[in-house]
Amino acid sequence: MSREQLVVVGGDAAGLSAAAQARRLRGASELEIVVLEQGPEISYSACGIPYWIGDLVSDRDSLLARTPRQFEAEDITVHTHTRAEEIDLDAGEVRTGDGRRLGYDTLVVATGGRPLRPPIPGLDAVGVHGVHRLADGADIRSAIAAGARRAVVLGGGYIGLEMAEVLQTRGLSVTVVLADPLPMGQLDADMGERVCKAMGDMGIDVQPEQPVRAIETDADGVVRAVRTDAGSYACDLVVLGLGMGPEVSLAREAGLQTGVTGAIDVTRNQRSRSHPEVFAAGDCAETFHRITGEPIHIALGTHANKQGRVAGSVIGGRAARFPGVLGTAVTKVGELEIGRTGLCSTQAEQAGFDARVEMIEATTRAGYYPGADPIAVKLVSERGSGLLLGAQVVGGPGSAKRIDVLATAIWAGMTAEELAGTDLSYAPPFSPTYDPVSVVARIASRLEQG
Amino acid sequence: MSREQLVVVGGDAAGLSAAAQARRLRGASELEIVVLEQGPEISYSACGIPYWIGDLVSDRDSLLARTPRQFEAEDITVHTHTRAEEIDLDAGEVRTGDGRRLGYDTLVVATGGRPLRPPIPGLDAVGVHGVHRLADGADIRSAIAAGARRAVVLGGGYIGLEMAEVLQTRGLSVTVVLADPLPMGQLDADMGERVCKAMGDMGIDVQPEQPVRAIETDADGVVRAVRTDAGSYACDLVVLGLGMGPEVSLAREAGLQTGVTGAIDVTRNQRSRSHPEVFAAGDCAETFHRITGEPIHIALGTHANKQGRVAGSVIGGRAARFPGVLGTAVTKVGELEIGRTGLCSTQAEQAGFDARVEMIEATTRAGYYPGADPIAVKLVSERGSGLLLGAQVVGGPGSAKRIDVLATAIWAGMTAEELAGTDLSYAPPFSPTYDPVSVVARIASRLEQG
Repeated sequence: MSREQLVVVGGDAAGLSAAAQARRLRGASELEIVVLEQGPEISYSACGIPYWIGDLVSDRDSLLARTPRQFEAEDITVHTHTRAEEIDLDAGEVRTGDGRRLGYDTLVVATGGRPLRPPIPGLDAVGVHGVHRLADGADIRSAIAAGARRAVVLGGGYIGLEMAEVLQTRGLSVTVVLADPLPMGQLDADMGERVCKAMGDMGIDVQPEQPVRAIETDADGVVRAVRTDAGSYACDLVVLGLGMGPEVSLAREAGLQTGVTGAIDVTRNQRSRSHPEVFAAGDCAETFHRITGEPIHIALGTHANKQGRVAGSVIGGRAARFPGVLGTAVTKVGELEIGRTGLCSTQAEQAGFDARVEMIEATTRAGYYPGADPIAVKLVSERGSGLLLGAQVVGGPGSAKRIDVLATAIWAGMTAEELAGTDLSYAPPFSPTYDPVSVVARIASRLEQG
Repeated sequence: MSREQLVVVGGDAAGLSAAAQARRLRGASELEIVVLEQGPEISYSACGIPYWIGDLVSDRDSLLARTPRQFEAEDITVHTHTRAEEIDLDAGEVRTGDGRRLGYDTLVVATGGRPLRPPIPGLDAVGVHGVHRLADGADIRSAIAAGARRAVVLGGGYIGLEMAEVLQTRGLSVTVVLADPLPMGQLDADMGERVCKAMGDMGIDVQPEQPVRAIETDADGVVRAVRTDAGSYACDLVVLGLGMGPEVSLAREAGLQTGVTGAIDVTRNQRSRSHPEVFAAGDCAETFHRITGEPIHIALGTHANKQGRVAGSVIGGRAARFPGVLGTAVTKVGELEIGRTGLCSTQAEQAGFDARVEMIEATTRAGYYPGADPIAVKLVSERGSGLLLGAQVVGGPGSAKRIDVLATAIWAGMTAEELAGTDLSYAPPFSPTYDPVSVVARIASRLEQG
């Protein structure tokens, strides 16, 4: 009996979702599934690493969602410490670091992302860390335990913000060096300013508009300072928070087509556009924006899970397609919560929309209720149609998750007027009579009506 | 010069929204606006009264959103302490308690709601309180200050739950007496059981399935106990939390048509169906369910505001219609948050839907993140189409407002599959990789696909 062979390269969210979903639809007698993972563990929460470093999560193993043994029980073979060195697309074979050759009928490439590393002298110095794998977390924890006192975080995106917060929590003095004028480049400037101010109020030293020129090291090659045109920031720890790119070296060498974002070019079924017997999912794959239809690369566990599931469904014989992304994201720095979805105002303009941009300030709870904190909500809609295009939220506890209401409304193709009419909940501990989301929608709608 | 006359009966959310919106659209030279309010103040937050009683809100005046003076500045005349005693629909006149007659071209009836008072002997005893007007709040505060130690709350809806919590916070021992088997009748039983258990764990004595037979009083007519078939519950304070009905005595006597719910029958423009020159809005008006189209009465400030605004728009010459309600509501008891929207499973069946009901248990944050609490999410969808019909959420802090995502999805006519595909936010402090809302939608969708 010759079973069909499915090989999955990468044992995290995308790869494992694909494997599990394929197995759900096709039994072990039909389909053999082998997952190759280069690292020591599978299915870990990269997003949780900052909080482990910050001692909010005490146990490293709690970041591991599933073990190889659990997959074995579902007749999915998982090889950890096994690096796929080469894919031979013509032969339909994966060659591993230990010299094995695995033939496949269907291949899933789920090699994930990698922290962006600009060409800065000294970036390979001892004491410069990404925040990507559990080993990175362990290294940063060790550096803190060994007495690191001053950290420089490069970049002010999600990872940059989270790392700045947790390093400060651990007692380090923290400088965030930004190439841009403001942190959180996915927000409009007026919202980014709120984030920047909150970071300053927390005692985080933010240094904007300073591209890094070099990482300075001592004679032993250990990091000593980060140098920009404006100054030199002494430190014994540097954290890379410059974003994640797709890890596509294996795919590119094999000859899989990549798209304009540099990630693997796939159809909405997560099939490689150049090689239909190959699927790609997760941070290594290109995806598309729900509103603009444009190719986009966003490294995020939720998309990886969903894309893996789509790939697994198609491999298992069930029609499925990935419905796109809005770029919905939330994070926090101190008590300040941040959420965004869809197009910010500059993205809307770039995409050719005549955008209406409204921003309101309100409170997270009824104004008289204890813990009512300021919240700002921004809504981007299309002038003329009122179609919702994007939203941003910055405010106190309870703010961030409101972005999901806006993401759902955008996803559904609602107008500002429709959202303003929606029956959202109200009770004093949870919102003012009109939720801030309703208020901004109502104002946008009123302006739309003239 | 003869200006058009608009008289508004009732100076709270609905009446004042109507007045303000009419004024926005038509200047004082065209339209005179007079608001009659029987009580001493206008625009107060009835929903905030429990929290004032609970000392979470220290200042009574913080529950007042706007003052008569603010309306005067907009050329809206507000008469407090002025009760509308009679409406003469033929003459187009309102007669007030102090003997004035106000002619109107257009009338807005916004007389609000009134706490339901079943025909129980002793219900008028000293020490029995509604939670409706600020004076009720002041009375209950006085009773506590005067030494009340034991309270019985009748009913386990929103007001019942909130009052049970705040009275306990104030140091009283609290018994909640229910006619139904469980609190929160707007939830399915399995969700109501979670609420009931949380109340018990807080030390609130819940006595289910015990219709009240009498309020027992002492020789001075002061409440002494609440009697049911199963027992007698000694107390010095009784709070009515049996729900709100429409306050329509004035409207009925005038001859305005009421609907099947007993509230004033209006079109979607908030016009009285029997008398088009009269509008009704807020807790005194009947409205309709967004999904079933059926008439419904829900006393809630958000609807009152929106309906008042619709009436004011139409009066001001701008087309507007109220888009219906889903019955979205949130509340909390202790740390347990509760949200519901749309149809619960019994309502879905009664409305003739072949309903699929799914419930999942998850955590409010990533499982490893501090403060990750249990959350249960229930989704009601239509078998065959997957159309979302209703949802319920019960869980720890951060649970309740998730109902807004579900309300928005239902409002937009989404299916479970569409909601499962929606790009909702993720970060460990805010949700597991898949938000519980996504998880329940995915399971319903998967079952729909077979």
